[in-house]
Amino acid sequence: MKKIRVFIFGAGNVGSHLISAFGKHPDKVEITGVYNRTISKIKPLENKFYITGKTKNLPPADVYIMALKDDVLKDFSRETGDLPGLTVHTSGVMPADVLSQSRRGVFYPLQTFSPGREIDWKQVPILINARNKQDELLLKKLGSVLSGQVMSITDEQRAVLHVAAVFASNFSMFMYQIAEKITGEAGLPFDILKPLIAETAGKIRRMPPDDALTGPARRNDRKTIDEHLAYLQEHFPEYADIYKKISELIIKKYRS
Amino acid sequence: MKKIRVFIFGAGNVGSHLISAFGKHPDKVEITGVYNRTISKIKPLENKFYITGKTKNLPPADVYIMALKDDVLKDFSRETGDLPGLTVHTSGVMPADVLSQSRRGVFYPLQTFSPGREIDWKQVPILINARNKQDELLLKKLGSVLSGQVMSITDEQRAVLHVAAVFASNFSMFMYQIAEKITGEAGLPFDILKPLIAETAGKIRRMPPDDALTGPARRNDRKTIDEHLAYLQEHFPEYADIYKKISELIIKKYRS
Repeated sequence: MKKIRVFIFGAGNVGSHLISAFGKHPDKVEITGVYNRTISKIKPLENKFYITGKTKNLPPADVYIMALKDDVLKDFSRETGDLPGLTVHTSGVMPADVLSQSRRGVFYPLQTFSPGREIDWKQVPILINARNKQDELLLKKLGSVLSGQVMSITDEQRAVLHVAAVFASNFSMFMYQIAEKITGEAGLPFDILKPLIAETAGKIRRMPPDDALTGPARRNDRKTIDEHLAYLQEHFPEYADIYKKISELIIKKYRS
Repeated sequence: MKKIRVFIFGAGNVGSHLISAFGKHPDKVEITGVYNRTISKIKPLENKFYITGKTKNLPPADVYIMALKDDVLKDFSRETGDLPGLTVHTSGVMPADVLSQSRRGVFYPLQTFSPGREIDWKQVPILINARNKQDELLLKKLGSVLSGQVMSITDEQRAVLHVAAVFASNFSMFMYQIAEKITGEAGLPFDILKPLIAETAGKIRRMPPDDALTGPARRNDRKTIDEHLAYLQEHFPEYADIYKKISELIIKKYRS
């Protein structure tokens, strides 16, 4: 198989993870360069790749990946102008057409990336689209270098999926944050909750989430709910409302 | 080491898991009997253990475990009367003193139990208390048969921990449920979110939850939040309010 040549714009969270992930497959992918507006940030990559802070005279590539913030994509893509390859962004939100390039598409890895945390890319769904079969095939090939699950979805599907991902990931993380605060207030280490969190997430690998929910709201245990609310109102008033709202939704769901 | 003799009241979720867990350590624990109000439910255990549906003339045990619903504990413990061993309940909510027995305590495994799902007991924190050192030591010994983490905490700490557990487990599961509904509405399989959920929960093993949160609210990306809200108001109005509330709390937290 011919190597796919990739140029990456942006060394933020997603960009850095892509650089490191593709870097592990030098037999299949050649990174022809990395752009970052603040070039000092990518200085450490200099020995491995061509690096630049300019949007003109870029090296050739089959796929140009713009791993940039949503709100700069439009202007940035206009600034670079047409490119001698397929240009994609990595956003879960923006339509492909935010890009001005004639050959454009999306290469969206559905995962939560944090600096310094290794990702098992084989497990990361990569959601793609492009304007023709040939470009889609190219993205499928590129995605398959990293992942076992590359899927073609529409802009609309991706936007909806992103809402789902906010609940599944960002908001569940916020629940962990609240739990951490409360645990600390009881003078207990957060570690004590980690097996519970692991098992809760582990359950849904094999059980539908609807079957896997337990706890006072599921049992419609008003006494416990009221005690919890009284505690929160005194110690964490900012979280009492959330507790109430979510409990009500759970009660309503399992009663009907 | 002398075997610890255990009698278990209740073959619900927690009770069944305890029976099966202790049953794996016949060298250390002897289950002298199992009680369930509806005796037909424990009929399948008959070949292995003494079973009963009555609260009188119970076999001897070092520890009597009442794995019963919170709201029946008080009456049930009065019904059985004093027992020739240490009596404990498994509730995350109730104080030890809900029991009427003179030797009483708590044996609370901090985990979410679902029927038919195997638990890695070594990882389950077991939170105990009793009224004297000797009984506490007995519970510590019993807990250590199953778990690597047995800890003595007060009633008050346990009650607070239970609030934390509701957020960490029940509410994060509810977030998965919402995500599942939304994903389905987009015509996509829920499977697509599972690696994200696994990674989100996996992250907190090594990162503080405060550092691990990503997404539009963390970035204070109002445009995306407004788009998500517009989508929810149209398709899942019951979840729009939760989205708004949680996003506001996240924005506030990371702004300050």
